[in-house]
Amino acid sequence: MVYRIGLVGCGTVGKGLVALLGEKREYLEKKYGFAFSLNFVTDFIKGTVASADGLDPGEIVRALSEKGSLGDMKGSRDNAPLAELLSETPVDILCDATPTNYETGQPSLGILQTAIASGASAVTCSKGGVGLDLAGLKKLASERGVQIRYESSVLSGTPLLNLVRGPLAGCVIEKVQGIVNGTTNYILTMMEGGADYAESLKEAQRLGYAETDPTGDVEGFDAAVKVCIMAQEFFGCKLSMADIDRRGITALSAGDVEKARSDGKRIKLIAGIERDGESVRGYVKPVAMDLAHPLASVSGPTNAVCLSTDNLGDVTIIGPGAGAKETAQGLLSDMLDIASGR
Amino acid sequence: MVYRIGLVGCGTVGKGLVALLGEKREYLEKKYGFAFSLNFVTDFIKGTVASADGLDPGEIVRALSEKGSLGDMKGSRDNAPLAELLSETPVDILCDATPTNYETGQPSLGILQTAIASGASAVTCSKGGVGLDLAGLKKLASERGVQIRYESSVLSGTPLLNLVRGPLAGCVIEKVQGIVNGTTNYILTMMEGGADYAESLKEAQRLGYAETDPTGDVEGFDAAVKVCIMAQEFFGCKLSMADIDRRGITALSAGDVEKARSDGKRIKLIAGIERDGESVRGYVKPVAMDLAHPLASVSGPTNAVCLSTDNLGDVTIIGPGAGAKETAQGLLSDMLDIASGR
Repeated sequence: MVYRIGLVGCGTVGKGLVALLGEKREYLEKKYGFAFSLNFVTDFIKGTVASADGLDPGEIVRALSEKGSLGDMKGSRDNAPLAELLSETPVDILCDATPTNYETGQPSLGILQTAIASGASAVTCSKGGVGLDLAGLKKLASERGVQIRYESSVLSGTPLLNLVRGPLAGCVIEKVQGIVNGTTNYILTMMEGGADYAESLKEAQRLGYAETDPTGDVEGFDAAVKVCIMAQEFFGCKLSMADIDRRGITALSAGDVEKARSDGKRIKLIAGIERDGESVRGYVKPVAMDLAHPLASVSGPTNAVCLSTDNLGDVTIIGPGAGAKETAQGLLSDMLDIASGR
Repeated sequence: MVYRIGLVGCGTVGKGLVALLGEKREYLEKKYGFAFSLNFVTDFIKGTVASADGLDPGEIVRALSEKGSLGDMKGSRDNAPLAELLSETPVDILCDATPTNYETGQPSLGILQTAIASGASAVTCSKGGVGLDLAGLKKLASERGVQIRYESSVLSGTPLLNLVRGPLAGCVIEKVQGIVNGTTNYILTMMEGGADYAESLKEAQRLGYAETDPTGDVEGFDAAVKVCIMAQEFFGCKLSMADIDRRGITALSAGDVEKARSDGKRIKLIAGIERDGESVRGYVKPVAMDLAHPLASVSGPTNAVCLSTDNLGDVTIIGPGAGAKETAQGLLSDMLDIASGR
């Protein structure tokens, strides 16, 4: 079968996905038996291009790079509500690569619901929708007989959710501790080197790791949404943002960092989940980690999650937590997982 | 469907697998839809027990713990060639938990071939057979329309092969560096603490990490077989033991370890694979790793592999590399993977 793919959102990640699909077309078909046809790409700002015969990924990347718009391409059309687009150009897998709003989960939540309602499986790298209502989305997908995957919503393409789903099958996850925000880990690594918080933030902003308004990262909101996703995925437990015991890194001083170092530890912003009797407790807070702990030596913008399991004890995965190609890889692996019929 | 399982080899790992199957029966059925019937267990020394109606895992564990033999159990029978046993009591999945002979690959190689010839899928934690002829075993399995899985042959249950097969699908592996032998890593960690090689080996032997004849570990043979498996799995390249550039840790002095430390590094026995033009080069050798590298801080008997990939850059997995339950978990996840029909 040839999988018909549609893409919503054409920022760096969406464009990265189109590029990856173009580069790897032959490899994917040969190695995984995954044949695809990219049938539409739509973006609120950059426009819409659609063709039931399939679009050329290379041409889309070129249009985005050269003109920042899909408007002059063959197959270009006016933007339309997603349901209309899906009805005119149905797809088997809808990729959502839109930015996240933590509070409403939109536009991701609506995009995923609409895609599933049309009979398409959905993959997303957006934290908003799955963080807010993963159980609801899974229920919709199950009713419609389609799949939903969201690997890239936590560690970009570094496998975590699919690692637990597949290769760790049989294990019960008992505890989670993770470095799931690269911006704060970069700032903490700079502070280890002697810089104070304000300087480190400024440098992170200069390098593009931190946004102009860094609140979402430095106050731990980004990590907290990821705790919500992991709590639903690993513990079957719905936590809302308000349930997360959240403390960011803004109150940390160079003295705190130095104190930890002299104790043979290193401060990390840890996103954690623990069982607490029958319930599940999620938190985001700076923790002085023993240097022997695998998370202690994860530096810079790198992410990592340590899973405590019943059968294996601790298993830690370390990898990138952001990037266009990295996030696109997560979306791609989700599509391959869906196509494998698992 | 109810998967009929047979087990060959009832040492610590085989017994661990039977125990795990017994403990997790309900969980596996509820969470993964995996229902099974353990139809025979056979061991060269401990005897054979078989029943087409299924054996009770708890009773087998009890017999092994209390009597070290299956001889008094209901369903006990004389040992017989595996082909005969499989013909009388056919199974859907054969688990091989026999010890490894690096040179001949036996008895694992013959067990896997016989199982596949009978129409059963096969899972193994034994390095011998898959290290020697993975391509041949895969070809046999493909011709017979069955599966073969061998996750536990490299890092016990810590996912590596299934991580690349599933969650990292879409990535090309460009380079591998791993700590794949817990005994030598334990010895190196002790030497870091100031002990010399002979002392460290003695302590590792006292704790049961090293065997009385430690050659297989300390000369790098164990790691070299694992390089053969990874080279076939990740690069599609058949390397024999003789192809591996192998150097163990026996020639390392306390001075070498101290020198590395004063250079801001740590010596690890690295099992590595690199592309070299069109060909693939495998090695096992002590390498002074920069402290910032994720493998540098992996201490004691823990294992880890760092995979350099095209889409994600470096991804590292850290976890146990041995243990009865840990290895059994790898066999279990392989069975669940086969049952998922992937």
